Amino acid sequence: MNKYDKIVKNAAGRLVPTEINGETHIPYKGVGKHIPDGRRYGPPLASCTNYPDDGNKLLPDLKEALLKSGVKDGMTISTHHHFRNGDILAVQVFDILHEMGIKDLRWFPSVSFPCHAPIVKHLENGTINRIEGSMNGPLGKFCSEGKMKGMGVLRSHGGRYQAVHDGEVIIDIAIIAAPTADTFGNANGVDGDAACGLLGFALADSQFAHKVIVVTDNIVPFPCIPWQIHGNYVDYTVLVDKIGIPEKIVSGTTKITKSPDRLLIAELTAKFCDAAGIVKDGFSYQAGAGGTALSVGMFFADMLKERGMKARFIRAGSNKYPVQMLEDGLVDYILDGQTFDLEGVRSMRENPGHINTSPFTSYNYHSKGNFSTLLDVVVLGATEVDVNFNANVVTHSDGYLLHGIGGWQNCLFSRCTILPIPLFRDRIPVIIDEVTTLCGPGELIDVIVTERGIAINPLRTDLIEKTKNSGLPIVSIQELKDEAEKICGVPAKPELSDELVAVIKWVDGTVLDAVKKVKA
Amino acid sequence: MNKYDKIVKNAAGRLVPTEINGETHIPYKGVGKHIPDGRRYGPPLASCTNYPDDGNKLLPDLKEALLKSGVKDGMTISTHHHFRNGDILAVQVFDILHEMGIKDLRWFPSVSFPCHAPIVKHLENGTINRIEGSMNGPLGKFCSEGKMKGMGVLRSHGGRYQAVHDGEVIIDIAIIAAPTADTFGNANGVDGDAACGLLGFALADSQFAHKVIVVTDNIVPFPCIPWQIHGNYVDYTVLVDKIGIPEKIVSGTTKITKSPDRLLIAELTAKFCDAAGIVKDGFSYQAGAGGTALSVGMFFADMLKERGMKARFIRAGSNKYPVQMLEDGLVDYILDGQTFDLEGVRSMRENPGHINTSPFTSYNYHSKGNFSTLLDVVVLGATEVDVNFNANVVTHSDGYLLHGIGGWQNCLFSRCTILPIPLFRDRIPVIIDEVTTLCGPGELIDVIVTERGIAINPLRTDLIEKTKNSGLPIVSIQELKDEAEKICGVPAKPELSDELVAVIKWVDGTVLDAVKKVKA
Repeated sequence: MNKYDKIVKNAAGRLVPTEINGETHIPYKGVGKHIPDGRRYGPPLASCTNYPDDGNKLLPDLKEALLKSGVKDGMTISTHHHFRNGDILAVQVFDILHEMGIKDLRWFPSVSFPCHAPIVKHLENGTINRIEGSMNGPLGKFCSEGKMKGMGVLRSHGGRYQAVHDGEVIIDIAIIAAPTADTFGNANGVDGDAACGLLGFALADSQFAHKVIVVTDNIVPFPCIPWQIHGNYVDYTVLVDKIGIPEKIVSGTTKITKSPDRLLIAELTAKFCDAAGIVKDGFSYQAGAGGTALSVGMFFADMLKERGMKARFIRAGSNKYPVQMLEDGLVDYILDGQTFDLEGVRSMRENPGHINTSPFTSYNYHSKGNFSTLLDVVVLGATEVDVNFNANVVTHSDGYLLHGIGGWQNCLFSRCTILPIPLFRDRIPVIIDEVTTLCGPGELIDVIVTERGIAINPLRTDLIEKTKNSGLPIVSIQELKDEAEKICGVPAKPELSDELVAVIKWVDGTVLDAVKKVKA
Repeated sequence: MNKYDKIVKNAAGRLVPTEINGETHIPYKGVGKHIPDGRRYGPPLASCTNYPDDGNKLLPDLKEALLKSGVKDGMTISTHHHFRNGDILAVQVFDILHEMGIKDLRWFPSVSFPCHAPIVKHLENGTINRIEGSMNGPLGKFCSEGKMKGMGVLRSHGGRYQAVHDGEVIIDIAIIAAPTADTFGNANGVDGDAACGLLGFALADSQFAHKVIVVTDNIVPFPCIPWQIHGNYVDYTVLVDKIGIPEKIVSGTTKITKSPDRLLIAELTAKFCDAAGIVKDGFSYQAGAGGTALSVGMFFADMLKERGMKARFIRAGSNKYPVQMLEDGLVDYILDGQTFDLEGVRSMRENPGHINTSPFTSYNYHSKGNFSTLLDVVVLGATEVDVNFNANVVTHSDGYLLHGIGGWQNCLFSRCTILPIPLFRDRIPVIIDEVTTLCGPGELIDVIVTERGIAINPLRTDLIEKTKNSGLPIVSIQELKDEAEKICGVPAKPELSDELVAVIKWVDGTVLDAVKKVKA
């Protein structure tokens, strides 16, 4: 997979392949530089003639649905991750496909989780050629060690929508796990035993896949309302005993941090936003699910409450904290991409101001705008940041690919992107000379907040000016790096081979970086 | 426009052109017989790079938006009819385009109304070549008299979505009048002075047009929620003083009939449904906006109330009557395609069970099913019905094209399609030997209810069997025709020339019939 004659240096100075899994891809050209000249992908036209008049598309089981969908070697099979680590369907799908003797599939999940570790055997036995999608944990490790036959392709949530929308990835069969559905295929995530809130990550799959299978453990009479997925896109429905493990749907990262260092980082972040004039009536922010980000949100909530102000919207991953703000009248809307706890699910079901969104409305870069640019501030994480503000979210300092991109790249387009990060983790500095893997170009990353100081990107002279008399500990990023190295020493570079195992796509479909195989 | 060497007899025995306005079209092949082999239309890809980061797409005026959209001769310009006879935008658009000297446009409204009479001058002065869409009143008369340069093309609501979806009609510029919007282009019909309920008829336009302009008189801060139209599809927004005339938005036909004959027809219709076992717990029906259809709905409501039953859903055109049923708990959902009064608008804004639908979810024949086939019964009108149960909704007995198709063709796919019609109008029989214009094939029309008897389509042996001992006045359609002729005499045929002025599309995009020019 590593054809050196097809590797070029892209606009970020990264060596990337132009041929990936037998297809030609475009190297990254710079932020906003690649303008696509194609047309939106159009799947084959259907006809109502070929669908049952009574609307009942129910088949006896998943195998029958896969057979009727015409599954064959080399196809692209998609699943989504709204059940997060409680997903049980993806493994079942590939177990069935393996039994059927199908080979060389491309698995196109919106994200994979540790619960998908059993997929490793299907990567080994040839059922699956490769994963295109985030690989959290064991699958990422497998890929990092060069064991995956095909090359991994990592995309952001918006980039995944873009790839499907543009026809860069043609999904042959989409399998949509739905907490509630009717037999026609209308489906939602707010009702049922495995309610997960919304199904936005499966939207592109429903709209563009050639065959769409909705699998549920809770059938309601037509119409299933809300119909977050429209049955008009669905070929078959399947009823199973259990569609997901509800207790694992809730993410473990949705607790406010108790670490004094992280609480300090959160407080500094909120104070920085205030000093920069961001926290005001009608402002908007993105609150991630991590402990630090959640804590920043709580500081914002306190500021709003004290001042009698109201935010216009919170971009979420929702959980009980933004829900509380919505119900306390501190914000007009939660624009939710993914609920992270059952309070989020309840609120989405009950509150008209709790809006389900999709990577189309929020993140697709090949739309006529998206709302990521309308966020006054976003608070994101990173595994590494370099002195040019470039950041990494997918690989660890040892080079292992253990995380997905999520909506991270897409959120960088906000009006102020802040990375509140510890200066070091396990005595390894987070701010370094050059990131192992480039996921976000430094020009889009505005502020780094650590427990020992805040660095503002020199490009943001406006923020520098606004906060210069704030009394906040504002330093240069070089100073932060030096301080970390003074404490921890200069970190060792990861030991990587020259073999490429995965690529990182940019939001416009171009190739931003490649991930190298780790040396065993 | 009438090339006889390109006219063929279609599967309904109607002579139709295969070339229409310079494009090749497929003659009707029979119900469910035409299976498309193309792909869904994909408009050119956009890039967020080309849209403002602050999301503000507001331009000073409509002319500027048309200019920026690159308007030029021969383009297709679309508008929608949610304001019905209170629309003021379409005329403004073509006045501007005329001033700009643009020629030979195709106007692609979802429906045109008498308020659009001023468009006649733009058909005369060459600004507009033709109208493709329903022509109610003066524009239909103009077309009937052979004065329109191009040929009219009439499509059902579902057929319009299908045509856009399939790329049969490529919309260059869609102009979407919105009662409420944000500057990004998110828009809805439930809020604002000109609230009309929903914007479903503009959905296809937003999704597939090359350029999309949202015009509103009520701008709200981002996000405009609900976002019935997604700003991600929108190129430009324009703020005007007044977007529509609210008092004319309300249709004049939304009153229960007071005519004793029509009330009798309504009662017979409801009794027939009951005798046929259709009225039961969990059933569904379509309630049109006409006085008779509304009255049928009231009879259903009474039956449900008396029996302690509940309908599952009403397909509407909503107004105060189905809203009352929803609020009285007599039905779970209103699946609404178009609100017909302000109670409908209020209910859509307030009731979670009042669902806004679009021609995509309800009617598109090139989807993987649509919900028209799930309706237990629909009650529709007709200008003429023939002894083979074929029906006409667009031309009068004098041959004048004065009505649109609406969702009529799409609704024919219900489980039981009933036409409650008077035996004669103005002493002209409604049941005749052969319809002037074929809009609905007889095999889909199940029952004709008149004040003097009920005729069941012989194909529906199930309905004949179920109602044979009902005591209802069930007769043959020939008997109904004979009775009408006994009273009124045999009607004269309309005086038509051989020149074709418009075609009637079937739900699958094939040509079902052609409309001839009336002799002056």
